Amino acid sequence: MFDFQYFTPTKVVFGKNKEEKVAELIKEFGGTKILIHYGGGSVVRSGLLKRVTDTLDTAGIKYVTLGGAVPNPHLGLVYEGIELCKKENVDFLLAVGGGSAIDSAKAIGYGVANEGEVWDFYDYKRKATGCLPLGVILTIAATGSEMSDSSVITKEEGLVKRGYSSDYSRPKFAILNPELTMTLPDYQTACGCTDIMMHTMERYFTNGGNMEITDALAEGLLRTVKKNAVILRDDPKNYDARAEVMWAGSLAHNGLTGCGNDGGDWMTHKLEHELGGLYDVAHGAGLAAVWGSWARYVYKNCLPRFKKFALNVMEVENTGSDEEIALRGIEAMEDFYRSIKMPTNLRELGVNPTEEELVDMAHKCAVGVGGQMGSAKVLDEEAMLAIYRASI
Amino acid sequence: MFDFQYFTPTKVVFGKNKEEKVAELIKEFGGTKILIHYGGGSVVRSGLLKRVTDTLDTAGIKYVTLGGAVPNPHLGLVYEGIELCKKENVDFLLAVGGGSAIDSAKAIGYGVANEGEVWDFYDYKRKATGCLPLGVILTIAATGSEMSDSSVITKEEGLVKRGYSSDYSRPKFAILNPELTMTLPDYQTACGCTDIMMHTMERYFTNGGNMEITDALAEGLLRTVKKNAVILRDDPKNYDARAEVMWAGSLAHNGLTGCGNDGGDWMTHKLEHELGGLYDVAHGAGLAAVWGSWARYVYKNCLPRFKKFALNVMEVENTGSDEEIALRGIEAMEDFYRSIKMPTNLRELGVNPTEEELVDMAHKCAVGVGGQMGSAKVLDEEAMLAIYRASI
Repeated sequence: MFDFQYFTPTKVVFGKNKEEKVAELIKEFGGTKILIHYGGGSVVRSGLLKRVTDTLDTAGIKYVTLGGAVPNPHLGLVYEGIELCKKENVDFLLAVGGGSAIDSAKAIGYGVANEGEVWDFYDYKRKATGCLPLGVILTIAATGSEMSDSSVITKEEGLVKRGYSSDYSRPKFAILNPELTMTLPDYQTACGCTDIMMHTMERYFTNGGNMEITDALAEGLLRTVKKNAVILRDDPKNYDARAEVMWAGSLAHNGLTGCGNDGGDWMTHKLEHELGGLYDVAHGAGLAAVWGSWARYVYKNCLPRFKKFALNVMEVENTGSDEEIALRGIEAMEDFYRSIKMPTNLRELGVNPTEEELVDMAHKCAVGVGGQMGSAKVLDEEAMLAIYRASI
Repeated sequence: MFDFQYFTPTKVVFGKNKEEKVAELIKEFGGTKILIHYGGGSVVRSGLLKRVTDTLDTAGIKYVTLGGAVPNPHLGLVYEGIELCKKENVDFLLAVGGGSAIDSAKAIGYGVANEGEVWDFYDYKRKATGCLPLGVILTIAATGSEMSDSSVITKEEGLVKRGYSSDYSRPKFAILNPELTMTLPDYQTACGCTDIMMHTMERYFTNGGNMEITDALAEGLLRTVKKNAVILRDDPKNYDARAEVMWAGSLAHNGLTGCGNDGGDWMTHKLEHELGGLYDVAHGAGLAAVWGSWARYVYKNCLPRFKKFALNVMEVENTGSDEEIALRGIEAMEDFYRSIKMPTNLRELGVNPTEEELVDMAHKCAVGVGGQMGSAKVLDEEAMLAIYRASI
């Protein structure tokens, strides 16, 4: 068991119509001039943005708006947001949307609170010393950015996708109304469930320092999302299932399910990042497409965890050798992916890389992680290429 | 499922020797003049207090000290602390100890940050509008006060014991070093484990709005503490088991295991409070002594939860009627209490109230909760008396 720090200061306000509390919460955390940052048109079309601005108008809180945050949010829009905040003396950011809007807002927050080039933080060149305070109204349960310390930004030039984490960017509040996620396309809901589970699975499949209580919480969270993802497939307007998944999304990535271990494996995410850089694929679907190949490549080096996962999460039969049980768990996970129409390989994901592209992705992935990475099994460039090849 | 708010801003720094970080953490949260508040002599005898003051000296942080916090901490000492803080211009409180020192420090914090009589808050007369910031070095895993919003203070006059909860009193940081709990007497360790489990069981046995994910987290936490309490009975210096229990103690009472439900039952705590008022009993042991009688009195009104508890926490055989399974779960819990030398009735607790005293406790308990209370089953004075009688 390793030492750890646990810091989740975000005030979560969870339930129906809770977006009505937004002005009250902004005032509680000292916001006087707001940048409302959002993504595509759905926030506008659904009337949510109008409801939010009406609430701020009534409360006498001034604001400016900036839409356009896209999946894999772009650095260009971050620059635009920083400039707008400085020009308008913005002192509080409100992200309305999913991970794209939140991550983009976090980057804007770093840019306003720190002198110099904001990309430096994402390029590992220096550390931020602050971030503009940030609140969230969440519309997609997936990335967990609403409670996490992390954000991922893509620099358009060369399509470089990088993450930066610091406690400064943990949102002050997060409004979680499960009803706001009911209009999501089924595919996005399933991608979200996959992403949520993967955030905890990345922390779970390790060879270092695991705590029993962390495992128990992680397994409970995974079972809950697995069950409710299937309920939502058949009944997308099921409020309770939306709520289970939404709350799981925040807990899966706020640090809770990693306390006491070595930080996690995270190679599935890294392998997917290169896919997401090369192809226009949804993050959750990309994760599902490579996970099985990753799992089969590494499970023998992390057998006790894969066995535990098979029994306690996938609830497979406890018979046969440890290897057989572990493999049965991997197969059961892939069956689950198929059951919610997630891919289990690149073909099902709808991409068909050439051998040259696989080599290129493996190379970029290896460079991106500094040569090698992983806890279930440490992977080098050759291993990454083998997993990509197996995932065709 | 009910709406909920989740707010756990406490920065937890967990692991060996982490008390060395205390000066750094105090500076991070803006403390310049500290009141170090502690309980009995063990903090002095163990050398912990000296190590803390040495660290503060080295960092150039000024402080005053106030010892003497006792179990069921007294209002008189709170007054003394408030006076000392005002006289010395203290701007940050550091509690070194268990629930007594932390709760007493929280009350001091309210008294300094609010004009007028501090007992008013505990007497439900008015609400606090602030609390002096507070940090914790924990030496006993039990009350969860290191992350919670609550504190319990006893007014010496009439021995009135009252709790007050507000987010203002949630500690800024909590240093959790499992090694600091290794010298506890076995009885205190077992009492702590009982208290920790009960904080989550009070939230679990409800008839309102439970969430699957909350249940899964609660059940995982309970199984973990149950297992590690037995390990500590046989091997009190087991670091990993100490760590599992310590982290569970914070999570059991920070709100996590109650998200989405109706707030919980809490009648076992209320029944024990009257015992604790009348007799000098350890809180955890008092809880164990009345829980079985409470459970048998209410389980038919909360059968699905008692069945779930029996199967998922006590892991009893899934055969027979729901009632049989539920009862088997209650019996298994009592067997567990016996296995760690906790009492399962008042006689085993070492007290022998007269019928008149039972009537008096039931009356005071009913008055204390405003006539009736409970979620598994709503209890009135007659029901409370019946449970006390059954617990002889």
